[in-house]
Amino acid sequence: MADATTQHIAIIGAGLVGTGWSIVFARAGYAVRVFDAAVTRESLLDRLSQALDAMARYSLVDDVATILSRVEVVESIEAAVTGASYIQESVAEIVEVKRQVSAEIDRFLAPDAIVGSSTSGLPASSFTEECENRARFTVAHPVNPPHLIPVVEIVPAPWTDIDTVARTRTLMDNVGQAPVVLTREIPGFILNRLQGALLEEAWSLFEQGYASAADIDRTISHGLGLRWSFMGPFETIDLNAPGGIEDYARRFGPMFAGFAVDRRTSRWSDEGIARATAERRAALPSAALEARRAWRDERLMALLASFR
Amino acid sequence: MADATTQHIAIIGAGLVGTGWSIVFARAGYAVRVFDAAVTRESLLDRLSQALDAMARYSLVDDVATILSRVEVVESIEAAVTGASYIQESVAEIVEVKRQVSAEIDRFLAPDAIVGSSTSGLPASSFTEECENRARFTVAHPVNPPHLIPVVEIVPAPWTDIDTVARTRTLMDNVGQAPVVLTREIPGFILNRLQGALLEEAWSLFEQGYASAADIDRTISHGLGLRWSFMGPFETIDLNAPGGIEDYARRFGPMFAGFAVDRRTSRWSDEGIARATAERRAALPSAALEARRAWRDERLMALLASFR
Repeated sequence: MADATTQHIAIIGAGLVGTGWSIVFARAGYAVRVFDAAVTRESLLDRLSQALDAMARYSLVDDVATILSRVEVVESIEAAVTGASYIQESVAEIVEVKRQVSAEIDRFLAPDAIVGSSTSGLPASSFTEECENRARFTVAHPVNPPHLIPVVEIVPAPWTDIDTVARTRTLMDNVGQAPVVLTREIPGFILNRLQGALLEEAWSLFEQGYASAADIDRTISHGLGLRWSFMGPFETIDLNAPGGIEDYARRFGPMFAGFAVDRRTSRWSDEGIARATAERRAALPSAALEARRAWRDERLMALLASFR
Repeated sequence: MADATTQHIAIIGAGLVGTGWSIVFARAGYAVRVFDAAVTRESLLDRLSQALDAMARYSLVDDVATILSRVEVVESIEAAVTGASYIQESVAEIVEVKRQVSAEIDRFLAPDAIVGSSTSGLPASSFTEECENRARFTVAHPVNPPHLIPVVEIVPAPWTDIDTVARTRTLMDNVGQAPVVLTREIPGFILNRLQGALLEEAWSLFEQGYASAADIDRTISHGLGLRWSFMGPFETIDLNAPGGIEDYARRFGPMFAGFAVDRRTSRWSDEGIARATAERRAALPSAALEARRAWRDERLMALLASFR
C-alpha cells in the first residue's frame, strides 16, 4: 500500500482505459487525480462505482467507498500533474493529440516524476521527442480493462532513461499489474504481435474452409487457452517434452516450421470477413453484443477470483 | 450416462493419452476395455486411481470406485475391439505401427463400430487406406491429458464417411469433450497450427532480443490467455469493436497484416534455443520439471472446477 498522504498518481484521459487505471491505482492505496475535459466528476464516479461494485461481488476488492474516496477529479492537466509521482496518459490514439498532451504534461512534471502512455499502437518516439523531460516518458500499454487484465507492456523510446523503465516496472508490480519490458520499439509491441500471428493462422484456416469459426474458437477456449490462462507459451512447451524446451524444440521445431508452407498469405479478405460475420451474427445478434461483453467481464472476474 | 450393460468402448494403447481416454469414457458411464501389450492391469489401475483421486479432490468426479470398476484390462486387440461401439486408438506415433494396429482393429470391428485415432501429426489417410472398413476410421486428436483438456479434433481421411465424423462428434459431446470438426486433412490440424503460429512469433521476438522468454510468456498468462480460457480468438475480436467482428477487421486487419513485414523468417534457431533453454533452466532446474508438471495439472483441475 502506498502512503496516500504523499505523492499521488495522475490519470490524463478518463475513457474506458483511464477509468480502469483509476481503479488500479486507487485499489492499491494511491491518491488519484483524474483529468478529462469531457468527463464530469459525477459520470466518472458513477462508472467507477459500477465497476467496483461488480468486483466486490467477486471479492476482488473490499471497501468500495474507501477506494472511491481516493479518486479526485480535477479541472486541468496542470492540477493533475503538479506534485504527481507517476502520470498515466490515456488520451485518444491520435499522434497529434498525444504530442500536445505530452507537451503539457512535460511542462508541469515534478523533477522525479515519470509518465506512461496507454497507447496500443503509437511508439513513444512518435509523440515525446520534443519534450524537455523525454527521458522520463515511456509507453505503458495495458489491455482493456486494465483493472481486470493485469499485463502492462513497457516500451521505451530510444531516449527513454533505463531508470524510467525500471521504476515503471516496479510501480506496476507494486499495484498488482503484470509488467513486461521491451528493450526497444516494434510495431504492435509483443501482445498484439502474438495475437496477430494466431489470428492470421485462424483466418487462413477459416478462409480455406477447414472449419467453422466456432470450431476454430474451441481449439483455443477448450484447448490451448486453458493452460495459457496461467502459463505462457514458452513455459508450456518447456513442460511438454521430457527434457524441457530444448528437447521440445528439437522434436517439434521442424514440424512447426513446416506449417508455414501450407499457410495462405492473403488473410482478412473481404469474402472471409463476410462469412465470419454471417457466422458470428447467427450465433450472436448485434443487439446481444453488449450483453455478451458484460458476460465476458463477469467471466474474467470469476477467473481472477478463482486464482486467489 | 451410457448404459454400461450394452456396447463398450475399446482403448488400444494405454500410455498417458490412452489412460486419459479411459477416464473420459468411464467417467461418462461407459464400460471400457483397454489393451496395451506393455501395460499390466495393476499399473493401469494404479495410474487411473491416482488421476481420479486428484480429480475427486477438486470435485471433478464423485465416485472413484464406481468409475474404476468400469475399466477392464484385456489381453488382445481382438478382446478389446469385439463388440465395441467405439475404438479410441492411442498407440505410438509411428506410421507403420498405426497401420498394423488399424489393420488388426479393422479385422474385429463390429458392423456399426467406428474408430478414432489419437494421432497429433499423422493424417488418417497415411495408415487406414488398406482397411476394409476405412470409411469408419477417422482422427480424433485430443490434447494431453484428455481427461483435463476437453478439445478433440476430428479430422477425416478422404474416404472417411461423413456419418463417422458426425457420430464421433456426438459421442465426444456426450462424454463431455469439446469436439471440433475439420472438413479435410491439413498438417498440424487446427490446434497445433494456431500454437505454431503464435510460437513462431514468440521465437522471432525472443531471438531478436525484444524481451525475455518470461516477459513474452506474461503477455499470454497475464493478458491474452485469460480471455482465451473461455472464448476463442474470433469471439474475442467480435466483442472488441463496437460493431463486432466486421468492424474489428476493418479497423485492425491492416495493422495485423503489417506486422508480418517485421517478422524474422528464421525461427527455432540453435542460438535462440540455447538462450531460451538457459533462461528456462535458471527459472526452473531440470530436476524441478516433473513437479512443475504436477503443478500445471493441479492448476488445470482448479480451473475446471471454477468453471462449474
